[in-house]
Amino acid sequence: MRETDGLRAGPASQQGMRRANLALVLGVIASARRSRAEVAAESGLTRAAVSSLAEELIAAELVVEEGPAAPSGKVGRPGTALGLNPEGPAGLGAEIGVEHLGACVVDLRGDVRAWRRQEIRNRDRRPAAVMADLAELLRRAVADAGLRPAGLMLAVPGLVGDGGGVLQRAANLGWEDVSLAAELRLALRAANAEALAELPVGADNEANLGGLAELWLGGAPEHFLHVSAEAGVGSAIVVGGRLMRGAHGYAGELGHVPVRPDGPLCACGAYGCLEQYAGETAVMRAAGLEGVRGDWVALLAERAEAGDEDVREALGGAGSALGVASAGAVNLLDPAEVVLGGGYARLAPWLLPGMRAELAARVTVRPWSDERLTVSRLGRRGPLLGAAVGVVRAIVADPGRLDA
Amino acid sequence: MRETDGLRAGPASQQGMRRANLALVLGVIASARRSRAEVAAESGLTRAAVSSLAEELIAAELVVEEGPAAPSGKVGRPGTALGLNPEGPAGLGAEIGVEHLGACVVDLRGDVRAWRRQEIRNRDRRPAAVMADLAELLRRAVADAGLRPAGLMLAVPGLVGDGGGVLQRAANLGWEDVSLAAELRLALRAANAEALAELPVGADNEANLGGLAELWLGGAPEHFLHVSAEAGVGSAIVVGGRLMRGAHGYAGELGHVPVRPDGPLCACGAYGCLEQYAGETAVMRAAGLEGVRGDWVALLAERAEAGDEDVREALGGAGSALGVASAGAVNLLDPAEVVLGGGYARLAPWLLPGMRAELAARVTVRPWSDERLTVSRLGRRGPLLGAAVGVVRAIVADPGRLDA
Repeated sequence: MRETDGLRAGPASQQGMRRANLALVLGVIASARRSRAEVAAESGLTRAAVSSLAEELIAAELVVEEGPAAPSGKVGRPGTALGLNPEGPAGLGAEIGVEHLGACVVDLRGDVRAWRRQEIRNRDRRPAAVMADLAELLRRAVADAGLRPAGLMLAVPGLVGDGGGVLQRAANLGWEDVSLAAELRLALRAANAEALAELPVGADNEANLGGLAELWLGGAPEHFLHVSAEAGVGSAIVVGGRLMRGAHGYAGELGHVPVRPDGPLCACGAYGCLEQYAGETAVMRAAGLEGVRGDWVALLAERAEAGDEDVREALGGAGSALGVASAGAVNLLDPAEVVLGGGYARLAPWLLPGMRAELAARVTVRPWSDERLTVSRLGRRGPLLGAAVGVVRAIVADPGRLDA
Repeated sequence: MRETDGLRAGPASQQGMRRANLALVLGVIASARRSRAEVAAESGLTRAAVSSLAEELIAAELVVEEGPAAPSGKVGRPGTALGLNPEGPAGLGAEIGVEHLGACVVDLRGDVRAWRRQEIRNRDRRPAAVMADLAELLRRAVADAGLRPAGLMLAVPGLVGDGGGVLQRAANLGWEDVSLAAELRLALRAANAEALAELPVGADNEANLGGLAELWLGGAPEHFLHVSAEAGVGSAIVVGGRLMRGAHGYAGELGHVPVRPDGPLCACGAYGCLEQYAGETAVMRAAGLEGVRGDWVALLAERAEAGDEDVREALGGAGSALGVASAGAVNLLDPAEVVLGGGYARLAPWLLPGMRAELAARVTVRPWSDERLTVSRLGRRGPLLGAAVGVVRAIVADPGRLDA
């Protein structure tokens, strides 16, 4: 969550040390249920310090006593186990898609406590109108969960600048220079959701958040390339367990990597971009479904499952183009895996053969194997999950931020 | 230097602390000449501790007294300034090229104290024969410099695996699975260079070392893509001031990014790789100079300067292909700069127009400007400089490694 990540632990003062130790203790507890004695042993802090820090975490509703700790094999009565509080501060995720809105609440353990999705055509709608619908959806999701969110993270299908507050451009929405946090707060106030309007709000590109969800929840390795699609084609590059954002926060635009330098004109102004072969419009046109409204991924999947040859061929061609662009990215980045996610996960059965063939043919300088191309099990839920889980991960990493 | 980078500072012991403080003091002195009082002020250590650590660094010949420190504006006699010892432990760099060998000695300050280059056709020669010539060149370079090297780093035109000791494949040399460190040590012993054979030896891909040289000496920013050529086309990706090596150490193979998926067959087995448009063989063929021996970069530069239209056109085509591949990389990585280095630096006047045109046409989602495409002033000297300077940077970062 960009907006709050800037918080520092403060100077090397006693307060700063206590804040660091709170994070240390909470980190141990987050990894597994632990008694105070176990926390002391793992953290290197004294038992007295752990007890005092644990009281503070319990008072902040971040930690709860969960009954006896797991038997330790040691003599004596087992201590009470401490665990993350599932009724404590929560993470609120929001998503603006071209054809839908989403809201999600996860608890401190990362479990989904509310999930709302609304199908609605947002293309070329004004941001204020979209934000009004989104505010209502968020209000309902928070009511469903019955938890108190500590932050809000918004996934958008476009470029978010370094600060995280401004959407610079979302071609598929027809938006430019939209102050996301400010617009959303206005809408939340108008929806009588004052408490939500007071939250720290961050925003990030949907492909980035989808990639982070894959890292946090999907079991992806430390180095991978996440290739996903909604209206556009996006990717997230994770290097050493960290999202690579680039010099200006724009890294990952796989959709505009040239596949054929003299291919069709792209909406971006260039020729032969991957999006012209594997994006929604291109695949729908190739499948003979140009202009058909609704959920393109579901439609294509249903028709392909039913044996529609035109659709299968269109997806085969998209898979080949994805393979060419991914092969270039693999040669450049050397990821351990390429993960096919977002809408592509559902379409994987028909995309994979072409991707596999191109990767095998073009990643030749170093060894490539089919197992390195995997399919996300989060699929299209990734960006919204990544948004909500990112909020609670930021709290666990630095619980002191709640006071700051 | 891979082989020695693995050294840890040890457990949090008094010895470990002293080692960390030695590095802290040496780091302050390396940034500029400093009196002991200034070192104490900048490092936060006591003056007594700084004096003791400085004595140790002087005894290890890493630091020298350089006469009075710069006037500090404070009352009282200025202290003696401490500086890195230009006669102390040195960095020894070696380079195996397809058409040359190189050896370089830099002192602790990074100043070049010896530079030797030998033109010799290494393609398809046996590693042992090449290493024998290289050992002789290294022996002479060290004699020229009159310094005692503390480590040796070898730049090679091929893939070096994670360990740093084994060259997995160098297509342009015709080498596979060569134990570089072992072979070089054997050759140094045979050349009666026993002291050099005892040094820690590391090895890295020439494009990686060229990129690091650009970061350390060339004034490149924290995020950049370095595009270079010798026989092949290579690149180095620097993210946040660190070389991105990828999951297996193979990142940066820009030469095998597809430019036209159905283009000419590449030696790697794929079709339409960048190397088939901008590599030595491809450009020489396009210029009507196929099979002409010697230094291809010098030859092309001389002919282009003399107005040879065929050569200019061939370089223009190479520039366009470099632009297409670089545009894809920029869309994916969002670097602050693309630096044209290695042999391409000399050829820049004829490559830049095509590169600029393709970058401008294809990096459209986010702003691109011509100033972000720069030309290295290190050029072909980059990899050898990077190798030698990497050795001394590792010493300055952790002087304790010399005892370990």
